[in-house]
Amino acid sequence: MDTVILSDWLAVRLATRRERGDAEPAYRQLLRLLQQAILTSQLPPGTKLPSSRTLASDLGIARNTVLHVYDQLTAEGYVLSTTGSGTYVADTRPDCRAVKVHKAAAAGGSVADAARPTDFMESEARDGADAARRTSDMAHPSRPTGMRELSARGGRLIREAGVSPKQWGAFMPGVPDVSEFPARTWSRLQAKMWKQTHPDLLTYAPGSGYRPLRRALSDYLRVARSVNCTPDQIIITTGIHQSIDLAVRLLTDVGDRAWVEDPCYWGVRSVLQSSGLALAPVPVDDEGLNPSESDLRAPPKLALVTPSHQYPLGMVMSLARRRTLLEYAKQHGVWIVEDDYDSEFRYGSRPLASLQGLDDAGRVIYVGSLGKMLFPGLRIGYMIAPEDLVDTFRTGVAELYREGQLMQQAVLTEFIMDGYLTSHVRRMRALYGERRQMLIDAITARFGDSLPVMGDEAGLHFVLGLPHQANDRAVAAAAHDAGVIVRPLAAYYSGEAAAQRGLLLGYACVPNEKIGPAFARLAQVIEQTSLQARRRSPHAA
Amino acid sequence: MDTVILSDWLAVRLATRRERGDAEPAYRQLLRLLQQAILTSQLPPGTKLPSSRTLASDLGIARNTVLHVYDQLTAEGYVLSTTGSGTYVADTRPDCRAVKVHKAAAAGGSVADAARPTDFMESEARDGADAARRTSDMAHPSRPTGMRELSARGGRLIREAGVSPKQWGAFMPGVPDVSEFPARTWSRLQAKMWKQTHPDLLTYAPGSGYRPLRRALSDYLRVARSVNCTPDQIIITTGIHQSIDLAVRLLTDVGDRAWVEDPCYWGVRSVLQSSGLALAPVPVDDEGLNPSESDLRAPPKLALVTPSHQYPLGMVMSLARRRTLLEYAKQHGVWIVEDDYDSEFRYGSRPLASLQGLDDAGRVIYVGSLGKMLFPGLRIGYMIAPEDLVDTFRTGVAELYREGQLMQQAVLTEFIMDGYLTSHVRRMRALYGERRQMLIDAITARFGDSLPVMGDEAGLHFVLGLPHQANDRAVAAAAHDAGVIVRPLAAYYSGEAAAQRGLLLGYACVPNEKIGPAFARLAQVIEQTSLQARRRSPHAA
Repeated sequence: MDTVILSDWLAVRLATRRERGDAEPAYRQLLRLLQQAILTSQLPPGTKLPSSRTLASDLGIARNTVLHVYDQLTAEGYVLSTTGSGTYVADTRPDCRAVKVHKAAAAGGSVADAARPTDFMESEARDGADAARRTSDMAHPSRPTGMRELSARGGRLIREAGVSPKQWGAFMPGVPDVSEFPARTWSRLQAKMWKQTHPDLLTYAPGSGYRPLRRALSDYLRVARSVNCTPDQIIITTGIHQSIDLAVRLLTDVGDRAWVEDPCYWGVRSVLQSSGLALAPVPVDDEGLNPSESDLRAPPKLALVTPSHQYPLGMVMSLARRRTLLEYAKQHGVWIVEDDYDSEFRYGSRPLASLQGLDDAGRVIYVGSLGKMLFPGLRIGYMIAPEDLVDTFRTGVAELYREGQLMQQAVLTEFIMDGYLTSHVRRMRALYGERRQMLIDAITARFGDSLPVMGDEAGLHFVLGLPHQANDRAVAAAAHDAGVIVRPLAAYYSGEAAAQRGLLLGYACVPNEKIGPAFARLAQVIEQTSLQARRRSPHAA
Repeated sequence: MDTVILSDWLAVRLATRRERGDAEPAYRQLLRLLQQAILTSQLPPGTKLPSSRTLASDLGIARNTVLHVYDQLTAEGYVLSTTGSGTYVADTRPDCRAVKVHKAAAAGGSVADAARPTDFMESEARDGADAARRTSDMAHPSRPTGMRELSARGGRLIREAGVSPKQWGAFMPGVPDVSEFPARTWSRLQAKMWKQTHPDLLTYAPGSGYRPLRRALSDYLRVARSVNCTPDQIIITTGIHQSIDLAVRLLTDVGDRAWVEDPCYWGVRSVLQSSGLALAPVPVDDEGLNPSESDLRAPPKLALVTPSHQYPLGMVMSLARRRTLLEYAKQHGVWIVEDDYDSEFRYGSRPLASLQGLDDAGRVIYVGSLGKMLFPGLRIGYMIAPEDLVDTFRTGVAELYREGQLMQQAVLTEFIMDGYLTSHVRRMRALYGERRQMLIDAITARFGDSLPVMGDEAGLHFVLGLPHQANDRAVAAAAHDAGVIVRPLAAYYSGEAAAQRGLLLGYACVPNEKIGPAFARLAQVIEQTSLQARRRSPHAA
């Protein structure tokens, strides 16, 4: 392309863009077109560009604009300018050695073809073909297919992902009623803290979080959860996921076995697997984790349990089982991660003391979060590290995640110290208890006691058992179409064989007046689905 | 221990605690003592506890307190109460099978010794011995030593950790001046957003962040960094660490090779290694990443680069090298993670277009953060995923990290839309440019041009070269004792052999008036250390 053709080519393209209503400034349009032409070798290395004055008059734009574009092209290495001799296209082709030759050419020498490593030869040939295909627009870049697969662990993570795109509505489990959160109080405390902010609170966190918050949390947890810890043992994280991830990366290696409860929370499975752990699902019964003789014969490196309220079934791990697990962990060097989620919301029953409080061998890492008590978007959680690992965990959290958010932690501390946390939790406990009862009443009114309710003593959800022949995944899908979110219990199991059939129903985030109508829709779905199932297998119980 | 002895034993311990000034309420003290006595078998299974009336009068406390303690012990499974027959210590020893037998005993039967799995026998014997040692206090729990080691990856992470406990002061690199952040403006926008908050903004993020923020960021990045993306391609993360972690977990498997620049940012090394990647350090020269023939023969799965401002040396990757890398990645299916940190702060030079903008094969994952532009504690970053991987990345971020913080993202969006981001960055660019010049002037005044300054064209730090015989680690340690933070350049290299000697000096967060005095202290340390080094090796140059 000589310089006259170049001017025409540019003029046509600029005009086309203007006609299409492209509001991009002339500067950026011209820059892009020239970059594109150079990258696709429509302007090959060594080509002399028209002078800025000529190009400006050819295109009918300000000379300053062209000068700016040339400057930018020079700064980015697309062209080389030599005083007096003009502006030349640089060789930016994928071969560093060739660049120097063309620098010489631009300075007045001849364009020599330098030898290239064979590795890059094939690609240059392809480059030419590509350029022809691409014409002048980058809008639809060609993409090689066939190497777009994720890695094995990435593929598994995505295939088995449990996260739901919706995080709100009847009967989304595990979500508190954030519309009840005292936003005005929070906002007031926030404004107060931002008035007196200190640089230290705006930069990275030093690894374990805002100290007054750690003090407040250790006081709270010692009384409410019988944990046995000093403020120093508390590490602030962004929640359960990060806490577990940290424990896994510090205490386990790729290929190590981890016990998880069967069923368990999907997030735990994803975090552990993507860190290279081999999951060993261990069954639960009405006393909690119930390892078989063969489970016991192969001690895991780590066991992840939810003793205060098994997720998702809701039973409480018995004291005997707790002591068994602790003793086993002590003997075999197993790390126990105690996920104490939801323990604040109990209806009637008293909570058992935490495993952490019973542990005399420093094998328990206790993890919890404030999201369900306040609002999930807050992303503040905590873990209690065994005393002799505190420094390690502090370093680990700073090194791996480089956390901050100290201002938010300071606001939270005020919120706790002023008593708003406990009064909010108390109010929510009453509200959720009421909603739980409304939902149970609706179930009983419709189904009598033919469908069992499990794990309703605590938390933000319970499990509604389904008849044996019912397919809970099908019910959940049909419910979704009817505008009701329920999670199939089977999805929480390691495999279909072990799976009980049921639905997770979250009631906490559903306004009282919506519980009845939403359940009516769900009930209809359940009835239709089981009717269909019964028709298909008329001899089933 | 019979019940009279028990009363005495409890009375003594309660009195001792009161004398020591233990302010814990009687209820909790009594509960703890009884739990402890049961756990250590000082009160063996089947023991009948005194009646609440008797114990209350023996201890001189309210009967209600004792009743509450017994209730709690019953709820927690430590004791079994049978109407009429009294309260018995339950068998909570580490053997689930034995529990049922003792339940029978408490109900009036005889205490039978059930058979136990051999696995637990030894531990029970030890339990008794332990109990004797422990007496009645849990203050100093005995901890088995010898199995406290971290995992191999955990140990390596902690041993090689680069994170500093201090995040502020002269000459901390990589930290902006947060005291200049317009906190009042931020606070005002925050208050405004909290007034009109919507439940959706308080719960979990749906996987890619607040949409208006993604739109604002894609507009910003298209203009400022020549990236080529739609708002949909933007995934909001908590920063560079999380962005890299996500890419690694989705696109690589354990054992895959990753190219990292040598030297590189410590955090990258830690994140990649703890996800099981094998690091292949690739040297850099003044055009950026410079793989050798043997590097090229073994294509990595992923390459992590800092083209706009090599970290920590500060050179810019040339356009030729950029195209070479992209072509190589396209041919060999390499994922490129482009870390475009610090690109907003340039003094004089214009930035090169991003690799992402040049990529026509969808191989580049672009990552950046707002921490250095605003304040690091904010923890909001972003990544640009290739178009066909957007859904995958969205699912991945929600599944692995369960993020939230949408309110903060909404505040940030207002901040950007109202123009505060660009005006703050412009102001900071001028301020940091001034500080950079002051520090360079101080260096020149003291050392002439004997110590080279590298990478001062952009960013929040530069590298001060040291004489070859100087030990930069020793200088940094001595500087630390003199109250000046500097990072030794050697610490950023994969090994001592490849390492250049120098000091990273961050100037952005140092108030103008402190630059001179702090550098004077540092200069003295440098002179003393090199003097000592010269004395040790008198024949060195």
